[in-house]
Amino acid sequence: MRIALCQINTTVGDLAGNVERVLEDARRAAAAGADLAVFPELCVTGYPPQDLLDRPSFLDDTDEAVRYLARHAPEGLSLLVGAPVRNDSPVGKRLYNQALLLEGGEVRDAISKTLLPTYDVFDEYRYFEPCPDRRVLEVGGLRLGLHICEDMWNNEEQVPYHLYSANPIDELAAIGIDLFVNISASPYAVGKPIERRELIRESCREHGVPFVYVNAVGANTELVFDGGSQVQSAEGGVLWHSDLFREDFFVWDTEAPGTPIEVAPEGDPATATAEIHDALVLGVRDYVEKTGDGVFDKALIGLSGGIDSAVTCAIAVAALGADRVVGVTMPSEYSSSGSVDDSRTLAENLGIEFHEVPIATAVGSFEEMLAPMFEGTEDGVAEENIQARSRGVTLMAISNKFSHLLLTTGNKSEMAVGYATLYGDMSGGLAVLSDVLKMEVYRVAEYINRLAGRDVIPRDTITKPPSAELRPGQVDSDSLPPYDVLDAILARYVEEHRSPAAIAAETGFDLQVVERIAQMVDRNEYKRRQAAPGLRISSKAFGSGRRVPIVMQRTSVDGTVLEAAPAAATVDV
Amino acid sequence: MRIALCQINTTVGDLAGNVERVLEDARRAAAAGADLAVFPELCVTGYPPQDLLDRPSFLDDTDEAVRYLARHAPEGLSLLVGAPVRNDSPVGKRLYNQALLLEGGEVRDAISKTLLPTYDVFDEYRYFEPCPDRRVLEVGGLRLGLHICEDMWNNEEQVPYHLYSANPIDELAAIGIDLFVNISASPYAVGKPIERRELIRESCREHGVPFVYVNAVGANTELVFDGGSQVQSAEGGVLWHSDLFREDFFVWDTEAPGTPIEVAPEGDPATATAEIHDALVLGVRDYVEKTGDGVFDKALIGLSGGIDSAVTCAIAVAALGADRVVGVTMPSEYSSSGSVDDSRTLAENLGIEFHEVPIATAVGSFEEMLAPMFEGTEDGVAEENIQARSRGVTLMAISNKFSHLLLTTGNKSEMAVGYATLYGDMSGGLAVLSDVLKMEVYRVAEYINRLAGRDVIPRDTITKPPSAELRPGQVDSDSLPPYDVLDAILARYVEEHRSPAAIAAETGFDLQVVERIAQMVDRNEYKRRQAAPGLRISSKAFGSGRRVPIVMQRTSVDGTVLEAAPAAATVDV
Repeated sequence: MRIALCQINTTVGDLAGNVERVLEDARRAAAAGADLAVFPELCVTGYPPQDLLDRPSFLDDTDEAVRYLARHAPEGLSLLVGAPVRNDSPVGKRLYNQALLLEGGEVRDAISKTLLPTYDVFDEYRYFEPCPDRRVLEVGGLRLGLHICEDMWNNEEQVPYHLYSANPIDELAAIGIDLFVNISASPYAVGKPIERRELIRESCREHGVPFVYVNAVGANTELVFDGGSQVQSAEGGVLWHSDLFREDFFVWDTEAPGTPIEVAPEGDPATATAEIHDALVLGVRDYVEKTGDGVFDKALIGLSGGIDSAVTCAIAVAALGADRVVGVTMPSEYSSSGSVDDSRTLAENLGIEFHEVPIATAVGSFEEMLAPMFEGTEDGVAEENIQARSRGVTLMAISNKFSHLLLTTGNKSEMAVGYATLYGDMSGGLAVLSDVLKMEVYRVAEYINRLAGRDVIPRDTITKPPSAELRPGQVDSDSLPPYDVLDAILARYVEEHRSPAAIAAETGFDLQVVERIAQMVDRNEYKRRQAAPGLRISSKAFGSGRRVPIVMQRTSVDGTVLEAAPAAATVDV
Repeated sequence: MRIALCQINTTVGDLAGNVERVLEDARRAAAAGADLAVFPELCVTGYPPQDLLDRPSFLDDTDEAVRYLARHAPEGLSLLVGAPVRNDSPVGKRLYNQALLLEGGEVRDAISKTLLPTYDVFDEYRYFEPCPDRRVLEVGGLRLGLHICEDMWNNEEQVPYHLYSANPIDELAAIGIDLFVNISASPYAVGKPIERRELIRESCREHGVPFVYVNAVGANTELVFDGGSQVQSAEGGVLWHSDLFREDFFVWDTEAPGTPIEVAPEGDPATATAEIHDALVLGVRDYVEKTGDGVFDKALIGLSGGIDSAVTCAIAVAALGADRVVGVTMPSEYSSSGSVDDSRTLAENLGIEFHEVPIATAVGSFEEMLAPMFEGTEDGVAEENIQARSRGVTLMAISNKFSHLLLTTGNKSEMAVGYATLYGDMSGGLAVLSDVLKMEVYRVAEYINRLAGRDVIPRDTITKPPSAELRPGQVDSDSLPPYDVLDAILARYVEEHRSPAAIAAETGFDLQVVERIAQMVDRNEYKRRQAAPGLRISSKAFGSGRRVPIVMQRTSVDGTVLEAAPAAATVDV
């Protein structure tokens, strides 16, 4: 049997567009002589459809889209597509997450997802009823072990703990199958492509069955799907692997399976940096493209001369082209001359539109307006934030005037500790770097320059000490530990949920420093709640996958205040 | 047996404070001769603990807090408390949501929650493994049908559809029990107190068993818990009912159960308005009080002379006292004289600190700074938003300077259609009215005046046409249908998930008007994603319980663009 793997990019809710995209690859598959074309999980609706699934009219439209697909599929070609389908039982969640077999103009069969991820960014049990049993799907004389995304992730035999009691991989193999087929909407995180490949390899080897894996590609708001569709042999050899971060297509003949290709080794940091770069580029491009015709003409970025805005800008150029990116530098009295010069150099290197709008006039106005109320107080955070917010107002005015998408530039390290001004530099529609730790931002900068073969991002931007430039001589290290220390703490506290005591013991860092950082993370939840959505590239990003109370205290009964978090405040750094 | 119902207010994460609060009522119960004191669901951690449950050190501290409670409980008194407890099995979610029986200095028994709400604001399957079976808990010779919150909500015999297959109420009754005991953390929504009472009544009558119900009270960020703890007889007579929106305590003797009291009739709109008022007051108070000592000295509100800021301000005064509320009016060239006068009158009526900060200087500065870039364009949304954002910067500067909590004033109708400026009037730490539709805001205003016995909120504020006053002569009805029409559409579209076609058919409103409103709701998701958390008083508030994609299209295969939503834009109203 000839099977087409169709790694496509769909848009949430765009049933007409998604159906057309499926039919395009279906025609290509038919032309290539395929018998079966396989598409990603929930490709009809796009993933994640979230609470659109609560709208009966959306479900009606989805049913109609599936019927339309079945009627318009090329003759003689079977399709496997993913869609939400109503559960007609009077008990249980209202929907199933299904893989539908379309044949002869109709829905010939369907398999429901068994394991429903309900953690991090995933809320599938919010909508879907799990499938109670496993069965084989016969297509063209082959017995397919068809399952959906998470269904294959409970098969790590080595680990002592399993999230689910069902194991569809083992159960399907026990029934007797010729081929595993998994359709997925599995988002990118650093290390995920290799983790997936190894997991599939383990399943192939355990059961001596080949594996066809089709994953979604493309970005939907926060989530970036890398694709990574592949075919593995019964021995766990990779027979084909898709390109990452772009659509791809391949026809595999079960009767002429081919020979294993060479694959990248595990855990290369250079690979991770390149992947992060590509994920961010795709994330920015799809946010703009999928938002609808002409809503955003261009992307807009406030350039500070620092590393974060430079990298954000270069990524926007890679995503949209230099003619669709606008940079604005907004010096204040505390800005170094370098901040304007480096910004201008960056803009010239990238070939983008560039403006300089000094903010002294606005800052002076606010200080004058507030002088009667602020009389007798000392300059501090309030005055620093007026500068950052005057820049925010300026950028948003330009965004509103010319329909530009304002990108925010804060990295994960800053967002973690609240080193950012709400309604100031946090203003914007998409946070490009908010899941990238500062040290990784530097690596991405070097990667961008290496890719260009020259210092597109000025060397000075990379080498100078990071500074918010909100008071004379200010540098980040006045209030934060060095970024290599900070990042090491944050990776453990935010991504691994480890306690300050455990982190201090493991790293040898001073416990008080670790506790202060943990406190800053907890206290600044209120800021992140109002942050722009950010592109997720780690296993634990800020945003919809991390749900931490704003109003809370952290105390223990031994009398100590553990993380001393008086939580929410509208007081900024 | 004498049972104490302890309706207490706990703070998320504050293990030491929560344990002390439990022990306080335990001592009171012991003094009143009680044998058993019953506390709300997850009272040890506060509800909802959210992703604190992912932190092993938090779980360790919770275990320690439970042991501390057991050791320090008054002698001879049994306690029933709620806490997350680790699941030691190598399969399944890592935790159980348990009711723990503390006796003789230790945890004597535990019952796990069976039905785990995973919809709207609830994410319990994210953390907890469901209990597979039901059993009776024996305490002091009585057979208790102990269960937790949602466990009682699958027992509506009349409805044709059930979310879960298990029904703990029927199953416990079938085993044979003397008394139902439910411990809950069930948040308020309009109509919920009566719905709960009737559901309990149905369970009592169906099985001829009395019912002790203990719910949490207090607000934790978005959620407001009303309490509504009660005792019902085997015949479904209400023997005791707590006050709503405050802590309460009652000792009930199973051997002298008393006689039914009179209860409020169903569905009185005046009751709903009073409840909404009380819920908002509690929400504001607990946000400030639970944020920790001295973080927020006072609440700060920008007063426009309109109804929303007036009601927000009056609620803040009811929550914190007049001496802890500051009002600021910030007239621009388009502000009516009424807007300043009405604001001043309101401030005088409430007895709060009041300031006037005209924003013309700042607005002029931005226009001057941007003149070169904006040359040749017409004034529009960009210029309107500069005004709103200059106010935002002003208020945040005051907030930063004096550690005041800035409250946002937008109502649910405005937030729904995006009739608000991001980083402008949307700036602040807590959105007091963001779940209250405009027509209900008027009813709350009248209630406030009735309660005060005079027009605390100026009559002119209530009667004048609503206006954003961002351009000459602007009124809301320029861009929106009348609020009674708008609210009727929004209640159906946002809260009931009905399609524009269904809404038009049901209400008789023009389909195009309904479609335009639906479009505005979908398009403005990006603004709400960055809104301050809001107090939830309906069954479907904006915020954590409503998860709608930002980047999406809504098209159907019949060729029409259904809701025509090019979704995200940073372009404001």
